[in-house]
Amino acid sequence: MLARLFARTVDVHAHCDLPCGVYDPAQARIEAESVKAIIAKVADSDDPDFRTRAVLIKEQRSELVKHHLWVLWTDYFKPPHFEKYPQLHTLFNEATKLAGASGTKGTMDADAADQLLAKIAEISEIFWETKKA
Amino acid sequence: MLARLFARTVDVHAHCDLPCGVYDPAQARIEAESVKAIIAKVADSDDPDFRTRAVLIKEQRSELVKHHLWVLWTDYFKPPHFEKYPQLHTLFNEATKLAGASGTKGTMDADAADQLLAKIAEISEIFWETKKA
Amino acid sequence: MLARLFARTVDVHAHCDLPCGVYDPAQARIEAESVKAIIAKVADSDDPDFRTRAVLIKEQRSELVKHHLWVLWTDYFKPPHFEKYPQLHTLFNEATKLAGASGTKGTMDADAADQLLAKIAEISEIFWETKKA
Amino acid sequence: MLARLFARTVDVHAHCDLPCGVYDPAQARIEAESVKAIIAKVADSDDPDFRTRAVLIKEQRSELVKHHLWVLWTDYFKPPHFEKYPQLHTLFNEATKLAGASGTKGTMDADAADQLLAKIAEISEIFWETKKA
Amino acid sequence: MLARLFARTVDVHAHCDLPCGVYDPAQARIEAESVKAIIAKVADSDDPDFRTRAVLIKEQRSELVKHHLWVLWTDYFKPPHFEKYPQLHTLFNEATKLAGASGTKGTMDADAADQLLAKIAEISEIFWETKKA
Amino acid sequence: MLARLFARTVDVHAHCDLPCGVYDPAQARIEAESVKAIIAKVADSDDPDFRTRAVLIKEQRSELVKHHLWVLWTDYFKPPHFEKYPQLHTLFNEATKLAGASGTKGTMDADAADQLLAKIAEISEIFWETKKA
Repeated sequence: MLARLFARTVDVHAHCDLPCGVYDPAQARIEAESVKAIIAKVADSDDPDFRTRAVLIKEQRSELVKHHLWVLWTDYFKPPHFEKYPQLHTLFNEATKLAGASGTKGTMDADAADQLLAKIAEISEIFWETKKA
Repeated sequence: MLARLFARTVDVHAHCDLPCGVYDPAQARIEAESVKAIIAKVADSDDPDFRTRAVLIKEQRSELVKHHLWVLWTDYFKPPHFEKYPQLHTLFNEATKLAGASGTKGTMDADAADQLLAKIAEISEIFWETKKA
Repeated sequence: MLARLFARTVDVHAHCDLPCGVYDPAQARIEAESVKAIIAKVADSDDPDFRTRAVLIKEQRSELVKHHLWVLWTDYFKPPHFEKYPQLHTLFNEATKLAGASGTKGTMDADAADQLLAKIAEISEIFWETKKA
Repeated sequence: MLARLFARTVDVHAHCDLPCGVYDPAQARIEAESVKAIIAKVADSDDPDFRTRAVLIKEQRSELVKHHLWVLWTDYFKPPHFEKYPQLHTLFNEATKLAGASGTKGTMDADAADQLLAKIAEISEIFWETKKA
Repeated sequence: MLARLFARTVDVHAHCDLPCGVYDPAQARIEAESVKAIIAKVADSDDPDFRTRAVLIKEQRSELVKHHLWVLWTDYFKPPHFEKYPQLHTLFNEATKLAGASGTKGTMDADAADQLLAKIAEISEIFWETKKA
Repeated sequence: MLARLFARTVDVHAHCDLPCGVYDPAQARIEAESVKAIIAKVADSDDPDFRTRAVLIKEQRSELVKHHLWVLWTDYFKPPHFEKYPQLHTLFNEATKLAGASGTKGTMDADAADQLLAKIAEISEIFWETKKA
């Protein structure tokens, strides 16, 4: 919790590709938190139109998770990072899969969102280490 | 600085309009920080193609600032807030104008970005007060 | 009816933010009319796939209403207008809320669309007064 | 001028493809008017960054002209219309070309915008005849 | 080199409107094949959330079919083509209608996708003739 | 039928994430070819507005290259592929970097486009091997 306190005070992601030099895994995490919130709201509702809207919006937020993660993987992380953290590619590949059809897009199961948030937390931990390095 | 430390640990904005219930002025601030970073990079470059890309990307980030602020103003803030903080409407109107053609879209002047960031900071202060209330 | 005849002959909205100088509340009204039409069509249909499509498209049109109104509020109206018409901020805030999750996005009730159209008509009336001034 | 008075009082285009049943060539015309306004503003400015923004925004508005026209051609006009007005296909093809790379996208010449507006006026005339029929 | 021959031998569509000079009806066909695949998957599923996602995605892919076809009709084909192939306008108009509300957007019937693919094949045949000419 | 064989023999990518099951690296390659074509056209032009449009459109096509590659990496390739082809992650990371600010977005140098196309060809080779397996 304390790590998060300090983590979220600094640079945040803005996907410029100018490049802007401004990145933060919080962007991906935020969208994943939205997905988690959507799933929770659906569990509490029996209105079919609300469920339709939830499916639509969950699809959009999940896609944003994928995008934010892909941008970090391509625009922020460099070859020296991938050498130092050999698990990084797999971590990103698994995380983006968890935000897709076989993950939060394709289910209303809260567990999918939790798995996705866990992966993002792993990525965030490495990200902040590289920032301090 | 300490306020920001604690401020940025909680809810973050995800523009769902489901509603998700997840908001944070940080999203607008982040985009404004990107705009500021773009302006700084342009000041250091004399490459015309780079300047073109910067104008294009600054236009996009500025539009995102406007959008994040509008969403807070419409989706997060409620009538009781506007009663308690009668300056809120004007604050949002001025901030969104500062991210438009007469503000950061229309200039490469760092001062425009600083004015925008100052307005967003004012909004953020009120936002976090309402969160604690 | 006659007022509408004369109202819709002049400037129309084009969201440039160059600025183009071309605005018209008709853009917001048009999208609200679409929302009203969608709701009416759904009332006449018992096809679940059609309803899904209607929910999706109503979400998109409602978002466009919000956007067109926000653009008028930020890009067209200036401080002298807000002084002359002190109800303007509230009018815009209520209108955009009526096109969101607590309004036309979140319901298939025709009444929500009618309330939204009524708000837009109020905005339009003020808009055309400022144009004549 | 009088034709425009009566023309713009009725149905307006909302590209639903639900279908909504709400169409109006004014949408295409409005974007073309924006393009014309952009070109005029550029003629009056010698600021290179302003010109860059104008090129960018003109590109976007021109693309919207193409889209609104394509939607009318596909979603509004039906086979009986194409039989009654055999010039309609060519009219639409020429108009959309005039809003592309060989038209308003590719030039700052006011004449291109005028040619485009003229084509849209021809389409509008036929459109309103079909509405009365 | 041989692998590429069989994989993709010629020009493909990239909607630049710079112009890039790169076009291929395969882009429209691909999206239509996706629509066909979506319809097939829905026939095999009784999960209502999956059906909602399928309706949403089919709407998006169908819109892309319309767009790719419109771009070919406006940006690639020229007046000499329309003279040589007088059926071309009608072919494009029918194809784009088949990807809309009265076609693949509005139904889960496989036959609609097949009709659309057949029209695209006709367009493709003419396209390749013009390429060889 | 034979013409289609040589024109396009196999599955192409349609980014559904339903999933549709339809993928092809040609999509990424096509956008890269567009980027290459844009760069070539700019080399032949001394019109500053044309160059601005080219920078804008090259930015958009490059972003599409990144997107198509990311989708293949996340949605098509599975863990057994990454085991069999351990160079795959690096290949995708390098390719997407080559379509970004440090690659084709940030330069008018034809060599950048050629390097990008070469990487995509390597990915394509592996892709087609996995298809045959």
